[in-house]
This record gives sequence, C-alpha cells and structure tokens, in this order.
Amino acid sequence: MPLSQPMFDRVALIGIGLIGSSLARVMRRENIAREIFISTRSKDTLERARQLELGDAYFAMASEAAKDADLVVISVPVGASGSVAKAIAPNLKSGAIVTDVGSTKTSVIAQIQPELPENVHFVPGHPIAGTEYSGPDSGFAALFEDRWCILTPPDGTDENAVKMLANFWHACGSDVELMDAAHHDQVLALVSHLPQLISYNIVATASDFEDVSKAEVIKYSASGFRDFTRLASSDPTMWRDVCLHNKEAVLEMLARFSEDLSSLRASIRRGDGDSLFDLFSKTRSIRRSIIEAGQDIDAPNFGRTPMDEED
Amino acid sequence: MPLSQPMFDRVALIGIGLIGSSLARVMRRENIAREIFISTRSKDTLERARQLELGDAYFAMASEAAKDADLVVISVPVGASGSVAKAIAPNLKSGAIVTDVGSTKTSVIAQIQPELPENVHFVPGHPIAGTEYSGPDSGFAALFEDRWCILTPPDGTDENAVKMLANFWHACGSDVELMDAAHHDQVLALVSHLPQLISYNIVATASDFEDVSKAEVIKYSASGFRDFTRLASSDPTMWRDVCLHNKEAVLEMLARFSEDLSSLRASIRRGDGDSLFDLFSKTRSIRRSIIEAGQDIDAPNFGRTPMDEED
Repeated sequence: MPLSQPMFDRVALIGIGLIGSSLARVMRRENIAREIFISTRSKDTLERARQLELGDAYFAMASEAAKDADLVVISVPVGASGSVAKAIAPNLKSGAIVTDVGSTKTSVIAQIQPELPENVHFVPGHPIAGTEYSGPDSGFAALFEDRWCILTPPDGTDENAVKMLANFWHACGSDVELMDAAHHDQVLALVSHLPQLISYNIVATASDFEDVSKAEVIKYSASGFRDFTRLASSDPTMWRDVCLHNKEAVLEMLARFSEDLSSLRASIRRGDGDSLFDLFSKTRSIRRSIIEAGQDIDAPNFGRTPMDEED
Repeated sequence: MPLSQPMFDRVALIGIGLIGSSLARVMRRENIAREIFISTRSKDTLERARQLELGDAYFAMASEAAKDADLVVISVPVGASGSVAKAIAPNLKSGAIVTDVGSTKTSVIAQIQPELPENVHFVPGHPIAGTEYSGPDSGFAALFEDRWCILTPPDGTDENAVKMLANFWHACGSDVELMDAAHHDQVLALVSHLPQLISYNIVATASDFEDVSKAEVIKYSASGFRDFTRLASSDPTMWRDVCLHNKEAVLEMLARFSEDLSSLRASIRRGDGDSLFDLFSKTRSIRRSIIEAGQDIDAPNFGRTPMDEED
C-alpha cells in the first residue's frame, strides 16, 4: 500500500540503469518521494528516462540533480563513485542522506566518504537484487520485493539517518541487514562475484573450444550450459569495476574455488567414484534451503519447462 | 496430435526415472506404443510407477520386461548399462531395437554392444533434455518438446532401425541429430558435463567457506549463487557415472576451463580493466543466440522475477 505521505521531499537518483530506474518506479508506486530528480552522464539514457517518465526533472549534471535533495542515491558502476561524490558535494543540502547501491563497499566508502562535507550523512547500501538486463528500460518496481538490502554504515554514522534509509528500503519491499563493509565484501565475493566470474569464464571456454563449434554449444545448451549464460550476459562495465574494486576478496574466492576444482579433477582422474558421489550428494540440500528461504522458485528448470496439465 | 496407430507394439522401459517416466507419459499421450512394459531394480520405484499408472505391466527383472519387446529403452545410470544389456540379451526378440538415453556414448557402446545378440539392432541415443529432479514422479510428457535427441549409431547399424528410432523421437516432440559417438562425448563434456561439475564445485566451495556462514550464502543467494544450485541438485549417481565413463573428455574440458580461469585471475591481479571488459563483453552475445535458437526463455531471471503489470 502506498504511503499516505511521502517519506522524502526530494530524492535524487544519480544513474538510471536497472537499479536506479527500478527505484524510480517503486518510489512512484509507493509514494516514497514527493519529487524525483534524475541525472545520468549519457545524454541518450537521460532522454530515455524522460520518455519513460521516470522522474520529475532531468539533469545532465549530477550536481544539479543533487541540489537540495533530502536523499541522494548513487547508482553507477562502483569505479565512478568517487567522481560522482566529488561532483555533488558542493551542492548537497545540510542533513541530506547520501547512499549508494554498489556491489563492493570498502572501496566505495574509501572513494565517497572523503569527498562529502561533514554536514551530510553517508550510509552505504547494497540491494541484493538484479537481473541480467541493464539500462532504464530494464527496471521494474517489484525488483526489490522480498530481497535483502545490506547497509554498511561506518562507525559513527548518524543512527537516525541509518534508520531513515532502512525505512526507505522497507518501503521498496526489501528486508534490511546491517553489516560491516569488509564482511560484506567477503560475503558478496563468495555468493555473487565468484558465480559471476565463473559464468563469464565457462562461457568463454565454451566459445573458444576449437573442436566443438559455437553452433553445437548453442544447439545443445539445454543440457546445462545455458544456466551460466544468464549471469554472463550482465553489464560488462559494472563487473569490470567489481573486479577492480573488490580485488583481494575476489582473488581469495577464485583461489579457493580453484583448489576445490583441483581436488575434483584428481578424484575424476583416479576414478574415485565414492568421493564423487559424496561431493555430488552434499551439494543437493543447499538448493532446498534457498527455496525455503524464498530466494528461488521451486519449479523444475526455474519454471521454464512447460509441464503438462495432467501430470 | 496422437498417432492414429501405435508405432511399436510393445516398448520396454528399463529404468523409470526422470527420462524413463517422461517417455512413458509421452508415449501414452501420443499413442506411440500399444503396450508399455516397465522394469526397475528398486522395488519402491517400481511400486511408485505402478501407482502412477505409467505402464501396462511391471517387472523386477529387466529380462522379463524386455521379452518380446519391439523397442527396449535403457534409462539407467551409464555405469549400469553393461549389466542391463547382459541381463536382457537372452530374452530379446529377433529384430528388436535396443536403445539407451545415456549422457556418454563411447563407454555405453563399449558396454552394451558386446552383450547383445547379432539379430537385434542397437542404436545408442541421448535426449538433450532434463531437469534437476529425478525419479518417476519427476517425469512429464513435454520434457522432450523442441529439444534435440542425438543418435550415435556405430558403423554398420541397420539404417531402417535408425530411421525408426528417429521417428520415435520425433513423435516424442524432439528433433534428431546423428553424430559420431566420440564427438558426442566431447560436445557433451563441454556443454553439459563441464557446467555440471563447475556447479557442484562452486556449491561445495561456498558451503565450506569458514568466514561466511551457510545462512549468509542462502540469504544472499539471489545475487548469483542460486543459478548454480539448480544443476548441483541433480542426481549424484547419474553424475558420478558420467565422470567415470567420460573421463578423458571431462578432464580435458576441466583443464581448459582451469587455464582460462588462471588467465582471468591474472587479469584481476594485474588490475587489467580492459581485458576484463573485453572478456565480459564477448560472452554477452551467446545468450541471445541461445534464446533465438529456442533453447532458453527470454524473461529476465529465467522468468522467476515478478514483473509489474504497468511496466
């Protein structure tokens, strides 16, 4: 149910891709902001946001959109966080809340915090939601529903600002969790960045294999390969920046994964059926837990297989 | 539209898991067999098949079910192919067609062919279709619709038998491709066995990581990890056998994947953003091709995300 009165007078969205445009839509639907000001660097994207009527005013300069805003949400590739903060800093209203939605938090805090004046509240955030699509057309109001949003306020952050931002995410449909930034970066390196990189890697391996044609890979992809292509079609700029800005944790997870893969290869080479069976059995239960936690659907093949009515 | 008259008088299904029970259902729906005889080693599974009314007669002994059948479909873990062939051989009718649905073909041919009498036609097959579920309850008649079935008849196989089996799969809804068994094993190692093993491996890595709890992995799995858990919840016996029976090709693909992963790790370590961007860009187009080929659906998140009506 929409709020009876807006939570914020003016919200500025800096960046209007999948996350920014989904926020614009849910804020409108839930009456979260009286006014939504939008800014993005690309002229075409800004024009598209205008055509989609995502906001109330549109600006090429982030500093113009952020002026006098009560809440500023930075939704740009994490490598651009520092320059956005620098650009908006002089125009920020005293007491404004600044947040972001970046997939890495230690780096984003290091980039943004030094740029901001002391009289604004910076509360870093990361909604654990997304699809493989990007750009203002890809957003939708339900994106954050029943998903988690992690906030990683540095020590000394104003508690009221954290509370207001948590309320904002609740109004968007999410549950909120507070976490230390370094731990966030490690958790996400494991559950998000590692799967993402493995997907890119396997798609690259399959594309370049000389004895199996790309046509064959595509034709027979329903046998497993296609599951990886969803993540591997995600935004390259966003993921380049994640690798560069969560480097240590990502390298740690890749090293761990590679160690485990070496053991698996050794088991296959030795023909050790018992080890293989044990490994393949213990991974089965985790999916059940994910479905029970409401983080995936129970239908076979993610629901993409047509079932018969009678069966 | 069901056939006006059955293609086979009697079909024996040896094994009644996901594939066998889906065949039973589609054969019934399409009037492909006048009689369906079912056999499986497990007493409980056989009883369940009877409760589901998947066939016309039920046998604990494969040799009993296969007696006088016109077509025998062996749908068991590939490691059990040889013993099933040995068991049914004495009871096979002259001119019967024997096929299988195993994920590896060179090994299955080596196991089955020597056991069979000269007066039957062995045509190895592999439907490229499946879900992460197993057992007789998991099957459904539409499983093979718009999927490929690969047949790998050894040199000298009776052409008419190959043609009849191709017609059988067409009637089940599939397209049929003929392929050399060794090439099949290489293609499937790449598009199926490699993704499967990588999925098992990443789920194992995430489960065992001491600084990130399993509860956190589950909670934040929507950020990417959950995509891997579907494959990793597949039948452990089936996949153990695939590893043991397509060992060389599987090890080759894992080695290739590991090489590519080493390059990716080096790019991250060096902070080489351009290489990362190039890699992440080139993998994007393959998903589009898979969707155009009808082998996956176009909806974001495999259609599991609720979209808003108005957006």
